[in-house]
Amino acid sequence: MMYSDIPSAQTLVLYFKSRGVKHIVISPGSRNAPLTIGFTKNPFFKCYSIVDERCAAFFALGMAQQLQEPVAVVCTSGSALLNYYPAVAEAFYSDIPLIVVSADRPSYRIDIGDGQTIRQENVLERHIGYSANLKQDVSHATETVAKWGKTLLTETQEEIQEYNERQLVNALQIARWKSTPVHINIPFEEPLYGVLDAPMFQITEKKLDVPGNSNQEDWSDYASIWKTSGRKMILVGVNQPNALQNEILQSLAQDGNTLVFTETTSNLHHPEFFPSIDSIIAPIEKSENREELFKALQPELLITFGGLIVSKKIKAFLRKYQPKEHWHIDPKKAYDTFFCLSKHVKVNPSDFFKAILPSETQKSAYKTKWQAVKKQYEARREAYLDEIPFSDFTVFDKVMQHIPKGYQVHLANSSTVRYAQLFPMDASLKVFCNRGTSGIDGSTSTAVGASIHAEEPTLLITGDLSFFYDSNGLWNANIRPDFRIILINNSGGGIFRILPGKEDTDEFSTFFETQHSYTAEHLAQMYGFEYCIAENKEELIQGLDGFYTTSLRPKILEIRTPRLVNNKILLGYFDFIS
Amino acid sequence: MMYSDIPSAQTLVLYFKSRGVKHIVISPGSRNAPLTIGFTKNPFFKCYSIVDERCAAFFALGMAQQLQEPVAVVCTSGSALLNYYPAVAEAFYSDIPLIVVSADRPSYRIDIGDGQTIRQENVLERHIGYSANLKQDVSHATETVAKWGKTLLTETQEEIQEYNERQLVNALQIARWKSTPVHINIPFEEPLYGVLDAPMFQITEKKLDVPGNSNQEDWSDYASIWKTSGRKMILVGVNQPNALQNEILQSLAQDGNTLVFTETTSNLHHPEFFPSIDSIIAPIEKSENREELFKALQPELLITFGGLIVSKKIKAFLRKYQPKEHWHIDPKKAYDTFFCLSKHVKVNPSDFFKAILPSETQKSAYKTKWQAVKKQYEARREAYLDEIPFSDFTVFDKVMQHIPKGYQVHLANSSTVRYAQLFPMDASLKVFCNRGTSGIDGSTSTAVGASIHAEEPTLLITGDLSFFYDSNGLWNANIRPDFRIILINNSGGGIFRILPGKEDTDEFSTFFETQHSYTAEHLAQMYGFEYCIAENKEELIQGLDGFYTTSLRPKILEIRTPRLVNNKILLGYFDFIS
Repeated sequence: MMYSDIPSAQTLVLYFKSRGVKHIVISPGSRNAPLTIGFTKNPFFKCYSIVDERCAAFFALGMAQQLQEPVAVVCTSGSALLNYYPAVAEAFYSDIPLIVVSADRPSYRIDIGDGQTIRQENVLERHIGYSANLKQDVSHATETVAKWGKTLLTETQEEIQEYNERQLVNALQIARWKSTPVHINIPFEEPLYGVLDAPMFQITEKKLDVPGNSNQEDWSDYASIWKTSGRKMILVGVNQPNALQNEILQSLAQDGNTLVFTETTSNLHHPEFFPSIDSIIAPIEKSENREELFKALQPELLITFGGLIVSKKIKAFLRKYQPKEHWHIDPKKAYDTFFCLSKHVKVNPSDFFKAILPSETQKSAYKTKWQAVKKQYEARREAYLDEIPFSDFTVFDKVMQHIPKGYQVHLANSSTVRYAQLFPMDASLKVFCNRGTSGIDGSTSTAVGASIHAEEPTLLITGDLSFFYDSNGLWNANIRPDFRIILINNSGGGIFRILPGKEDTDEFSTFFETQHSYTAEHLAQMYGFEYCIAENKEELIQGLDGFYTTSLRPKILEIRTPRLVNNKILLGYFDFIS
Repeated sequence: MMYSDIPSAQTLVLYFKSRGVKHIVISPGSRNAPLTIGFTKNPFFKCYSIVDERCAAFFALGMAQQLQEPVAVVCTSGSALLNYYPAVAEAFYSDIPLIVVSADRPSYRIDIGDGQTIRQENVLERHIGYSANLKQDVSHATETVAKWGKTLLTETQEEIQEYNERQLVNALQIARWKSTPVHINIPFEEPLYGVLDAPMFQITEKKLDVPGNSNQEDWSDYASIWKTSGRKMILVGVNQPNALQNEILQSLAQDGNTLVFTETTSNLHHPEFFPSIDSIIAPIEKSENREELFKALQPELLITFGGLIVSKKIKAFLRKYQPKEHWHIDPKKAYDTFFCLSKHVKVNPSDFFKAILPSETQKSAYKTKWQAVKKQYEARREAYLDEIPFSDFTVFDKVMQHIPKGYQVHLANSSTVRYAQLFPMDASLKVFCNRGTSGIDGSTSTAVGASIHAEEPTLLITGDLSFFYDSNGLWNANIRPDFRIILINNSGGGIFRILPGKEDTDEFSTFFETQHSYTAEHLAQMYGFEYCIAENKEELIQGLDGFYTTSLRPKILEIRTPRLVNNKILLGYFDFIS
């Protein structure tokens, strides 16, 4: 083992170890050398090297999402740090403990014309759980600073060490306890490469378990409202798999007054639930009795949990037809997504439901009615699929059906996750999507990061703009041979064709759709993926055949769909089931 | 022509036209539709579509760098904006008027769980000249806001319109007058696609010339110090070509007491100047008489102008052997790079030198001595080149010699610009490099942007890490067929091998050098470039032959150099000339 001879660098590395932060994603640089040395020369840490910091941060985010523990990214000084920002914002809104560590120049070197030097302190502050601005060690600072006639330091090394340790403890606790990104900025004076064989400090190991919920709340009011509400809707956003135990699922499924609306990203399944929300809502929007039907669907009590909701239609519906009560169940935060939040219940959803369930269950018209609607659109969807030509819609149907059981599935933004919502998803699949900011900027990198420690293989389903945007996500030495990408390439942002205001003009295809003719073939060659392309139904079936079998290299299956028909077919679906 | 029916969107577009902001780089999205419609449907504007916002911003920065006028980037809401940040920081430190326009959701939609929604206001504030946070129009807001029982608006539409216009005027003036990036955030309520055939507003055209310098300063003190200083050094950083008129150059060149140290990026040339600073300083560092020699080089008066200095050696020298006086000549800002700044002279360098020149000139030992040193290292460099094998060093020599006269040359960070400093550069070449933050994150995109409106063809010289980092820079429909890339691929960040502390271990090659075996061949195929590879001297000569002739497609010449010898040869050069 080897330790940096810079006290703050050594302290940081020791604290990361003591608090169990094990996975470190490092981007190359010189200013961060004291940290790179400290992490790579200590076998406790598992280090990963990724050059493009934007990809590095999404890769770390994917790992943290799966491990459900903090993962760190470490970069050199300058604009490197700014390339982390898209992933930091995603982590902030998705509650993922991403620890950003940026090496910096000493403060007297900022804004004096040095290279790779920007204003790093607090630069992420609008989307961060905590910004720890460490101070430069006296032992390293004094000599240089004195030489240039500056007397910037008024503290002793003991005071600085104490300050830095407190900042580190805060940052590491907040990342883990609040499951949120934190930023640690750490200035280093040259020389940067000095090492010691033994540490200068002893940091005691301390396990940072997430504090339990006190759970002392009196649940009788909740239970009573639950029991007496005739029309209850539970709407579930982004969730880790198995967020609720099976007996809770059963109990909710048997409740005759309760509609459980799930999204693909909620990872909750039961035949009694409603997984394709838009297939319920869109026909109502188109109906002449829409007012009456929406009122028939309007819940008295709305309970939500999980992360952000994908379906725009359910948001618009609930904002207009608000429930009397809206409770959001989450230990940490509650967004007033429907402008009618009445309670933020700060416990885990499973604790909450255990406390209020079971109540008596009896069939009510509320549930019976919408179950009938669900059965009807499911049948109509099958009929529609038989009628329409090869397109995004038929491709998603086929692709979804063929995913092997147990896979981890990552959906890119934004058409991919929206299409996926329209089709059944096997209950054994674990589904993820960056819905914190819903960006297209890091879907591939996130999926690669998420796959690294997974027991099961990982499939990324992505559109072409997301895929090419994050093509550097493939520049990664850690990609597993069982990693799979299905790229649905409709030659542009086909989703924009669905929006109002689209026109068949050059401006539209250039500036909204951003039409292109790229394929993944060359990237597959460059990054050592097996590659196969499908341009019609037969080729797709052929392409899927054997796609998931064991291989020495990861694989990309690119499916080209006709650019101009996809939007008509999607809109036609909602007409057809109405 | 067509105008958005959203007042603020229409006003923004009209103000951009009235203030002569003509070039608009748009990334696809829906929230920014009112702006996309406004810009693309008005023939005054030249619009460009680029999907990856990181590349889009560097592309716009390259255009603004060459046009020396503001260029705008326009994106949708959410993390899109954050991808602009690396280019914004570069623009901030390189004084480039990049106008960032981000479409946003209305404020009551922030942090309530909507997709593609982050805290956009002031998010770039640490590196921005101005943040204009426009307000949402009442006409669009009232209905929706009222519906959800919010009463957020206390202003009339007239007040909001007046506020927004003032913010726009401020932002546009500051961008142009201070030559700095600005951020305009503009929230839109749906519907986003409504249009009008005629504008609601009339905005008067107003030419925003940069205010002249009052130039009333009394120059006698400066002229007197200039005249009486026996040892003057002029050190020139990043400059546009032709920053000083020829007669000033002549006058400086003839001054026997003045050493003019130029960097490759300074675009100033004269046989009497000293263009390869490190070739002067490195031998002194190695000398036994270094103290004496450094004192012999130490100036009494140091005058600097231009942007950031690349050479670390000159910075270290001047920080230790400080001049009595250091004047920085720049209308806007002065960094205290050497910790001894005595005057910030706020005029253009050419005005300054016109005011204090000419003074008497006579040969002094100061200049004669260092001219002799220069002649010596130039001869030694030739001898060294005859001795050494094919490597980065010999490649740069050959590449530099073969650039056709008049080309615009972009150098990537960081080894490229450092190597380039060691070789003569023809005076007709116009040289640029992103030295504001010295990042590797946008060199290709910047060069592509800079080439778009250039009279001459453009050559980008880049290392492999920079090139692969910004590979999406090639995803651009506007690349000219005369665009040329020379990629010097040493299979990793070879520059790290030069740093102290390097070791031949796996940790070193993985986490510092980040070794890889990628080539540009597949990217060239994907993006329609002609491609040629050279792996030795003969192939290099062959590759350069015909490389600059007219072609239907842009070209990449990839030169592979041996990973392990480059650092030894570079360090050997400084030994050899010592």
